[in-house]
Amino acid sequence: MSAGWLRRRFLPGGPLPAPRPATPRASPVPYRRPRFLRGSGSSPAADAARRPDARPVRSPARGRTLPWNAGYAEIINAEKSEFNEDQAACGKLCIRRYEFGAEEDQEWLTLCTEEFLTGHYWALFDGHGGPAAAILAANTLHSCLRRQLEAVVEGIVATQPPMHLSGHCVCLSDPQFVEEKGIKTKDLVIGALERAFQECDEVIGRELEASCQVGGCTALVAVSLQGKLYVANAGDSRALLVRRDEIRPLSSEFTPETERQRIQELAFVYPELLAGEFTRLEFPRRLKGDDLGQKVLFRDHHMNGWSYKRVEKSDLKYPLIHGQGRQARLLGTLAVSRGLGDHQLRVLDTNIQLKPFLLSVPQVTVLDMDQLELQEDDVVVMATDGLWDVLSNEQVARLVQSFLPGNRDDPHRFSELAQMLIRSTQGKEDSPTGQGQVSYDDVSVFVIPLHSQGQGGSGP
Amino acid sequence: MSAGWLRRRFLPGGPLPAPRPATPRASPVPYRRPRFLRGSGSSPAADAARRPDARPVRSPARGRTLPWNAGYAEIINAEKSEFNEDQAACGKLCIRRYEFGAEEDQEWLTLCTEEFLTGHYWALFDGHGGPAAAILAANTLHSCLRRQLEAVVEGIVATQPPMHLSGHCVCLSDPQFVEEKGIKTKDLVIGALERAFQECDEVIGRELEASCQVGGCTALVAVSLQGKLYVANAGDSRALLVRRDEIRPLSSEFTPETERQRIQELAFVYPELLAGEFTRLEFPRRLKGDDLGQKVLFRDHHMNGWSYKRVEKSDLKYPLIHGQGRQARLLGTLAVSRGLGDHQLRVLDTNIQLKPFLLSVPQVTVLDMDQLELQEDDVVVMATDGLWDVLSNEQVARLVQSFLPGNRDDPHRFSELAQMLIRSTQGKEDSPTGQGQVSYDDVSVFVIPLHSQGQGGSGP
Repeated sequence: MSAGWLRRRFLPGGPLPAPRPATPRASPVPYRRPRFLRGSGSSPAADAARRPDARPVRSPARGRTLPWNAGYAEIINAEKSEFNEDQAACGKLCIRRYEFGAEEDQEWLTLCTEEFLTGHYWALFDGHGGPAAAILAANTLHSCLRRQLEAVVEGIVATQPPMHLSGHCVCLSDPQFVEEKGIKTKDLVIGALERAFQECDEVIGRELEASCQVGGCTALVAVSLQGKLYVANAGDSRALLVRRDEIRPLSSEFTPETERQRIQELAFVYPELLAGEFTRLEFPRRLKGDDLGQKVLFRDHHMNGWSYKRVEKSDLKYPLIHGQGRQARLLGTLAVSRGLGDHQLRVLDTNIQLKPFLLSVPQVTVLDMDQLELQEDDVVVMATDGLWDVLSNEQVARLVQSFLPGNRDDPHRFSELAQMLIRSTQGKEDSPTGQGQVSYDDVSVFVIPLHSQGQGGSGP
Repeated sequence: MSAGWLRRRFLPGGPLPAPRPATPRASPVPYRRPRFLRGSGSSPAADAARRPDARPVRSPARGRTLPWNAGYAEIINAEKSEFNEDQAACGKLCIRRYEFGAEEDQEWLTLCTEEFLTGHYWALFDGHGGPAAAILAANTLHSCLRRQLEAVVEGIVATQPPMHLSGHCVCLSDPQFVEEKGIKTKDLVIGALERAFQECDEVIGRELEASCQVGGCTALVAVSLQGKLYVANAGDSRALLVRRDEIRPLSSEFTPETERQRIQELAFVYPELLAGEFTRLEFPRRLKGDDLGQKVLFRDHHMNGWSYKRVEKSDLKYPLIHGQGRQARLLGTLAVSRGLGDHQLRVLDTNIQLKPFLLSVPQVTVLDMDQLELQEDDVVVMATDGLWDVLSNEQVARLVQSFLPGNRDDPHRFSELAQMLIRSTQGKEDSPTGQGQVSYDDVSVFVIPLHSQGQGGSGP
């Protein structure tokens, strides 16, 4: 994306968008549940026909093993939407290598058919405005990631990424320059994840436009490669490392609240994006006529602290970011500030677009499994916000730590644990936490065991 | 600053800047050393007449006590510039209160002459491009801060900042809104520091223009107020808390390297700011003709990781941020990315301005002294980059921890310690670290003891 593109696309005075094709180029994205749920009794029809008191917790059929024997479970929301807008994907990641042709000419590089490096991939997508974007992301993101990793795999397997991908040294001190910048092979995987998310976002934009559909989704991805676990997050899902003596978040959430300064800054640079309908400033509550002329608490884009300003008429407009905590909304519309899709999303009854304020690029954290001295019950819990809305990190960790040690002989214990975590969000009196919290949202959970798989290179 | 202002001021097509007055409205800012060095044998003439082997370490005269009995010492650079471009200031901060007139009409609020709240203030300014900006900052910033604190002092002394400064509740649940946002009185002090830095930056801009001078400076400020120590930093100076069992940085540095993404992002949004002379992208080294067509390591504004791109001709331009570590420069010109001044600074022989890429707003950290159980030898060391270039946090802490316990009876021990820290940067064989590191830069150091002063409110 270039600045020129942003201006043409989102600012007044740019050319009109190309007219939509009279007939869609593709049929609507069909609704489905994750492939690995086949045979588990789940069906799209079941989603539409559900009753609130009969929402089943779904897991893969017992004969079906996910990578690393990970556990998975999901539950559909309590009639918030017709379909479950969460989606999940996982699988083996087979990365091939380009090889030189006979003449060692770059133009003749060809992609080998055999895998060169393997990893594993688990992903959760929490859709909004319909299930289409999450389904497209579940179908697409792993391919984008494989492609991006294949483009740099020579660098990933090197001791240190070479300045030139061809390996030729233009300047004798190139390795020294790379060393001084502190560039490691893990930085290439981070870069590949960042680019894969952006590529996937573009694919989703094209596909949704072609099928005349709308929607967006968050994306939380865990990738194992060469003894490291990469967690990439764009949205408000969360990954949590739980060990016997340690609880460590592997992601942080991106919401209008956590990204306030970035969002206000963009509105400062491009006030046209608010079309005179919103105020960029943050106040403790929405202002009213009675506040005019008073000095009230406020914050602008460059402020971490608070100050007072005298209220003018323009301050009475609806705030760019409004509401508190789980209720905070961007332009009164969206609860997340990063994710995929939403290319056509507009503020209700206006032409004001959300997309310029959204980032598709994820934040990536790296867990060096080889350095961890992993124990048998060490897991990563990945879940959409429906879980974290009603269970704290500590509560989830306690459930994990109390369940796993007593169930070491059960080959399905990670799946059982995922189901138990979901049941803990359903407010049952007999729920393991006994506190009766209720999530009315879609909830999806992966429980990824790290022991043995994390040891020694690229996994099984 | 509004976006419109930024566009008019810095982008092509804006109106021409007002012509400079034929004769300066003010005389040049006179060079001076900090007021509290008077009588210590320091003099501006001594700076200009120094020889590299005879640079004295200067401290306040023995009879002069700084706030909290803090120690101070400085040394001029080894002929890098004619004058010492570092400046320092400290003093008591007397904050008055507005009081209602007889009719309780806001318009009749008047500032009382008596102090209402007192605190203390220590500040270091590291100038570049001449000493003028640092001198102006040392003369001005505390006044800006006092004014900003006086504007919100009613909120600062409240249990919780009121939604309206007048204390009137427009909406009955106002305190609840403030509570939900988690706004504390310390956030008003942070806001006041942020606004004071910006106000001071504007004053410096006007003063430098009026006196036909140039230059900029970093700013590191510590403020004690109501049992808390606020450390505000814009630049590459550093404040370090040293206790018997703890070393805690109270600031982080703002350089073209640490603020790469913010700077690249601005160049992405406003490519005009580079006037076609620079490339926004980061490469491990500057590219040359031989790199054309090769795939080389690069990073753009949205990337934390690295990837490869095929080199085009535009990639051969000089990089927006170039060099490594201490050598990193913004637009080939400046080593810091936040600070005060530099309103007229341009890339040599071009019309490309640095100011749009610089922030005057500081990052503020808060040390809650009342919560610390302070010991007698707990101090904050504040110093310009000349110290930290040659001594690590751990080395400084070791010097502090080995010096103070044995010198508890010496009333000048904090001053002695400041001088000893400076001597440790001069590469003497008999220096306390014995490692012979040499700083050729200006170095200024405050050592602020926290014990007793930090206990119980607003200090002595």
